Formats: sequence, C-alpha cells, structure tokens
Amino acid sequence: MSMSSILTVYLGSSLFVVSLVWFLFGRKNSQLDKLLMCWWAFTGLTHMVLEGYFVFSPEFFKDNTSCYLAEVWKEYSKGDSRYAGRDSAVIAVEGITAVIEGPASLLAVYAIAKGKSYSYVLQLAVSLGQLYGCLVYFITAFLEGDNFATNAFYYYSYYIGANGWWVLIPLLISYRSWIKICETSDNVDTKTQKKKKKIP
Amino acid sequence: MSMSSILTVYLGSSLFVVSLVWFLFGRKNSQLDKLLMCWWAFTGLTHMVLEGYFVFSPEFFKDNTSCYLAEVWKEYSKGDSRYAGRDSAVIAVEGITAVIEGPASLLAVYAIAKGKSYSYVLQLAVSLGQLYGCLVYFITAFLEGDNFATNAFYYYSYYIGANGWWVLIPLLISYRSWIKICETSDNVDTKTQKKKKKIP
Repeated sequence: MSMSSILTVYLGSSLFVVSLVWFLFGRKNSQLDKLLMCWWAFTGLTHMVLEGYFVFSPEFFKDNTSCYLAEVWKEYSKGDSRYAGRDSAVIAVEGITAVIEGPASLLAVYAIAKGKSYSYVLQLAVSLGQLYGCLVYFITAFLEGDNFATNAFYYYSYYIGANGWWVLIPLLISYRSWIKICETSDNVDTKTQKKKKKIP
Repeated sequence: MSMSSILTVYLGSSLFVVSLVWFLFGRKNSQLDKLLMCWWAFTGLTHMVLEGYFVFSPEFFKDNTSCYLAEVWKEYSKGDSRYAGRDSAVIAVEGITAVIEGPASLLAVYAIAKGKSYSYVLQLAVSLGQLYGCLVYFITAFLEGDNFATNAFYYYSYYIGANGWWVLIPLLISYRSWIKICETSDNVDTKTQKKKKKIP
C-alpha cells in the first residue's frame, strides 16, 4: 500500500471516530471537554488497534496479505527501523501503551462524559505515561546513534512529526489536570480553615 | 569492596537519612506522613546519588580507585549485566529516574511537610513514573531472554529483591494518592450539588 492510502485510511477512520464522539456527547459537555473526549477516543483506539497489532505481531514484516495494520508498520519502519528489528525497548513501551494506556484512554472518554471524580487524575496518569514512553523512545534512539530512519524526510515526518503530537498534547493535558487537581485541593483546604476559624 | 561493606554503607547512610527526616519533621505530621517523608527522602537520594552516578559515569566498570559508587554498580551488575554493558533501555530509565524523579521525590518531602495542595498529585506522578520505569526494566530483560544475572542468588536478591521494593511501595502510594485525590474531588462535587439544591 502507498503512503497516501495508509494515511487516508488512518486519518479517515480517525475523523470518523472523532466526529462520532463529538456528536454523541455533544449536549451536556463544554467544547473543551468534547475536544478532550475526541483526543482520548482517538489516542485510545490508536494505542489499542495500531500499537496493539504491532506488539502482538512479531512477524508483521513478513506479511504478504496486504493487511492494513502490517502495511502501517512497514511504512512507519522507514522512519524508525527499530520497529522492523523488534527492538526490546520499543516493544516494551508499545506494549505498556497498548495494554494499559489504550483501555485507560477510553475510560477517560467515559470519565469526562459522566463527570467522574477520577476524571482529572486518570487523564494526568495516562498523559504522564505517554510522556514517559516518548522519553524512553527518544532517549534510547539517541543513545544508539539516532540513525534509524531511511532518510531525512521519514525522520522528520514519521519519527519526529508523528510522535511530536504525543509529546505536545499529553504535556498540555497533564498541565491542565495537575492545575485542576490542585485547585480542588486548595478549595477544600480553604473551606476547612474557614470552618475552623468559625469554631472558637 | 565486599558485598557486605557495600550494603552496610548503603543501609547505614539510608538509616541516617530516614532518622534525620523522622526526627526533623516529627512534631506536626502524622506517623504515616512521617513514614512517607522518610521513603521520599530515601528514594530521592538513591535516585539522585546512586542512579545519577551510574547514568553519568559510562566508564564506572573501569574505575580502579575503589570509589564507593563505582563499587555499588560493579556489584549490582552481577544481578543485571546490562548495567555493565550500558544497555540503552536501562540508561534511559535510570536517566529519567535520576534527573526527573530524584528531585521530584525530594520535593515530595517538602510538599508533605508543608501540606501543599500538590502533595498527593506529586506523589502519584513520581510513583507512576517509578512503576513505568520498573515495567520497562523488567519487560526489556524478559524480551531479551532474562539471562543477565551471574547466578540465581544475584537474580533473586539484586534483580528481583532490590527492585521489588520500587514496585511494591510505589503501588501502595499511587493507590493511596489516587483515592485521596478522588475523595477531595467527591467532597467538592457533593458540596456544589447541595448548594445548587438550596437555590431553587
């Protein structure tokens, strides 16, 4: 499959998921919450379907059936050959991402929609996990010579460009979640102090 | 240096740090908070001093000066030869632990002592980081054959035994911090709902 077909299917199905979430949860929630739910649905499915396939398909590179998921990873390996080479650090990070962070991301969609008390702490935990994964991913490549891309185009578009979103967005979400959790804690503290002052 | 001398220095200096924290912050804080502060001081200094030395001393294995920190890692390498072999996944995890989690652990001591609003969220973040690090550490070893110890004694005492504490304690702390954060959020929600009901 060509790069454009792979990207069209990925972006098309992502757009479908995002639209579905946007319109399904459209009534009660704020614009920002809807946007966050779209992100969590998109990233959760990417983790579970795409990255899950990679983790549990050690022979994807030999697949000749034009299976879409195998084609994705053959294409992505042009930006990072450690995927084709089954590098253990890459499999460890992708495994944690697919098995723990994928389902947790979908739980975040539900938590935001229902206004659960664990909504911010869950979003923080998954975002920090994504950031930790990206750190291990980039540091191991750097330590091993940072020479795993076929050429500069694949290096900047796949290795840097595609992964950059999973640095930027988790950074923003973890910052916001952290602030929200601290604000709630501050409110409770202030109220407790006021009560104490009232009782002489 | 012999194994017993290395352990004596490590346990002795850890006991000194723990006692110092216990008696310095003894008055205002609960027993559990004091215990947590002891843990964060101990783990923070272990991350920064011991693991920091490993990360930034690629030639520790050649050190002939009987430097204590080099001796620690020569000894620990008997339980996991990837340390002597400068495995990139190990360096990445140890680097994140030493540079980010070490100082963050010491900040947790301060946050608990001063009752800061970010106390639980910080403890959760660092504990989850420690757990993620342990997962990457154990999964990469497993994927590469789990055959890095000199013998079964070093495997179970160093590789499993020593690291086991950094799985067990972060698990307990992250569970507690998560529950505390959710309780606070629940309290605020209940109060907001009560206020809304009062206003017709």
